[in-house]
Amino acid sequence: MTDPTGHPSLQDIGTPCLILDRDRMDRNVGRLRERLDRLGVGLRPHLKTAKSVDAARRVMTAPSGPATVSTLKEAEQFARAGVTDLIYAVGVSPDKIGRILALRAEGVDLAVTLDTVAQAQAVAEASRRAGDAIPALIEIDCDGHRSGVLPDDRKTLVGIAGALEQGGRLRGVLTHAGASYGAIGDDALRTCAETERASVVRAATLLRDAGFACPVVSVGSTPTAHFAESLDGVTEVRAGVFVFFDLVMAGIGVCRIDDIALSVLATVIGHQRDKGWILVDAGWMAMSRDRGTARQRIDQGYGLVCDIGGKPFGDLILSDANQEHGIVTLRPGSDARLPDLPIGTRVRILPNHACATGAQHDAYRVVRSGGDVIEAVWPRFGGW
Amino acid sequence: MTDPTGHPSLQDIGTPCLILDRDRMDRNVGRLRERLDRLGVGLRPHLKTAKSVDAARRVMTAPSGPATVSTLKEAEQFARAGVTDLIYAVGVSPDKIGRILALRAEGVDLAVTLDTVAQAQAVAEASRRAGDAIPALIEIDCDGHRSGVLPDDRKTLVGIAGALEQGGRLRGVLTHAGASYGAIGDDALRTCAETERASVVRAATLLRDAGFACPVVSVGSTPTAHFAESLDGVTEVRAGVFVFFDLVMAGIGVCRIDDIALSVLATVIGHQRDKGWILVDAGWMAMSRDRGTARQRIDQGYGLVCDIGGKPFGDLILSDANQEHGIVTLRPGSDARLPDLPIGTRVRILPNHACATGAQHDAYRVVRSGGDVIEAVWPRFGGW
Repeated sequence: MTDPTGHPSLQDIGTPCLILDRDRMDRNVGRLRERLDRLGVGLRPHLKTAKSVDAARRVMTAPSGPATVSTLKEAEQFARAGVTDLIYAVGVSPDKIGRILALRAEGVDLAVTLDTVAQAQAVAEASRRAGDAIPALIEIDCDGHRSGVLPDDRKTLVGIAGALEQGGRLRGVLTHAGASYGAIGDDALRTCAETERASVVRAATLLRDAGFACPVVSVGSTPTAHFAESLDGVTEVRAGVFVFFDLVMAGIGVCRIDDIALSVLATVIGHQRDKGWILVDAGWMAMSRDRGTARQRIDQGYGLVCDIGGKPFGDLILSDANQEHGIVTLRPGSDARLPDLPIGTRVRILPNHACATGAQHDAYRVVRSGGDVIEAVWPRFGGW
Repeated sequence: MTDPTGHPSLQDIGTPCLILDRDRMDRNVGRLRERLDRLGVGLRPHLKTAKSVDAARRVMTAPSGPATVSTLKEAEQFARAGVTDLIYAVGVSPDKIGRILALRAEGVDLAVTLDTVAQAQAVAEASRRAGDAIPALIEIDCDGHRSGVLPDDRKTLVGIAGALEQGGRLRGVLTHAGASYGAIGDDALRTCAETERASVVRAATLLRDAGFACPVVSVGSTPTAHFAESLDGVTEVRAGVFVFFDLVMAGIGVCRIDDIALSVLATVIGHQRDKGWILVDAGWMAMSRDRGTARQRIDQGYGLVCDIGGKPFGDLILSDANQEHGIVTLRPGSDARLPDLPIGTRVRILPNHACATGAQHDAYRVVRSGGDVIEAVWPRFGGW
């Protein structure tokens, strides 16, 4: 069945597929924008979550950006769609500089990220040869979570900045509070945010004191973006998952369950009634293998099961998954009653991790909150 | 750099990307074929692992099949490539029957799988309306792992067969020893294989005794295919991951590490020397979130790290992963020495789960064992 305008509905589209609730997304985007406006910093959304030009246009503050990417494929795709202000926020390796220069030659202000003198030398040398000073941000390690220079490591910071200026240029400093994904509770999140801010501002100050201009001071993670009380000294916030949210974010208290804008539409394909199992056609291929809530207080299995309108049944989760089979059960210990969902029933499953679940699909089917009609199909891309 | 014939090499192709060692793959395929020949049963490879026409042609015993698929997208893609003998091995829901009939109308002998009277009625009714008796296999639950009718449940088996024959037709019975992925050691694997065989043969016997022809008796999982001592009464084996193998299969003793034909090529992008970390540009997006070895005796993290030639460094694993960052460390407790891998060094990472890692990529880059040249690019597809 289709609606009078010819759009398919959630009842008749092929499953599994990825559903995007546009009203929730718009609300989520509005919420962070308003917050950052109040704090007086810019938003440079991380487009690695959406990987969709249509979604990006609703998230960025202008069609040309600014935005953040995690792969050069993203940079190329968004550049083709008119985004000209980009940071590639994964440490650059020498073999990638050719593609970076090619994008820059097309007029894209693409900046790179690095944390070693060796990378700075490679960027400076390639810049000299190309006659194009590639701008770079030094990654700061604010919480021991991943890459980056320690914020007090003046020697390394100055060494990198000095090497860079032999052909490239220092755009600023950047950090990501990876530890915030494991924080629980408002106080812990506020502490993560302040550590993130203070670390990167400290590094910027050291560089400026050493005589280097350091115009950009960039922080970024969805939890800290929502819990920072001050962003003094910060010029921009990178965040990605805030657009869609997910069960991991709900588990650490950054959003509510009914803020989650992504779900996987699935169809009931069987039952094992003796065991209290309902089988659906969404397995880990549709949900991803992400089990990010496994270490949280509430383990949501592979996802929280909702009715076709997007309302959770309560304690019903995708407790196990094969490639194309999902096993839906009540949460262990629940005293709720297993709903009667005959073969053919449609359900929507909220994901643990929006970035990972999104990556399993080639498009968003866009609906309104409470709506049944697929208003639009927004292609998404993958790869590198 | 390219070789004299213009092919790129592992040194210069963009990373991360998926590498397929064709010699290992051919050896793996040959090994199972030879085994099944000896046991006197046919091979109906499960193409959900490869999702590639080029790979499928090297795995199937003939260009037209037989083969197994887990999605209708796979059925459609392989049908377009000339495969005409297919089983869709995930329980069918009524909404999918239209696409199934369309493929059948094009001359594809596509059979479906089901385990309830309701599904059998839906298939029979659709068959009657289309004037095309859709063949169906009844799924048997041999180990409590997923879907299926218990092998002794005569009433349900006969009920399904009876409902089916009101328009459709009973092709046979099918089972999958899902528990075999958790078995460790030759004895446990042999027991799984015998349970799988005995269960499905028992169900076939009940159906035949009740007057139903049951020509196909189908079993399938890579571990049981390699450990079955007898397949008496079985007509065909479905298996998928045997083509590539992976660390989970090595962990349960079905293959050796140097049988694993898939790897992710990655580039070193940084270090945290104080922590013994090497950062690479393959995170969970390139490896998948699959942590299938986490519950095995040897936890391989997100993958086992090899040099560019495919030789493991020893205790070096991808111990943690962000979306596009991988953290390479020595295995906890190892007394090996961290290799010196400067920025720009290329490594190959063996995956936990070939099906899951493959799904993150849009092509296989094909090399020979020990070779550096990418001889071919085999596209792979995803979606439903």
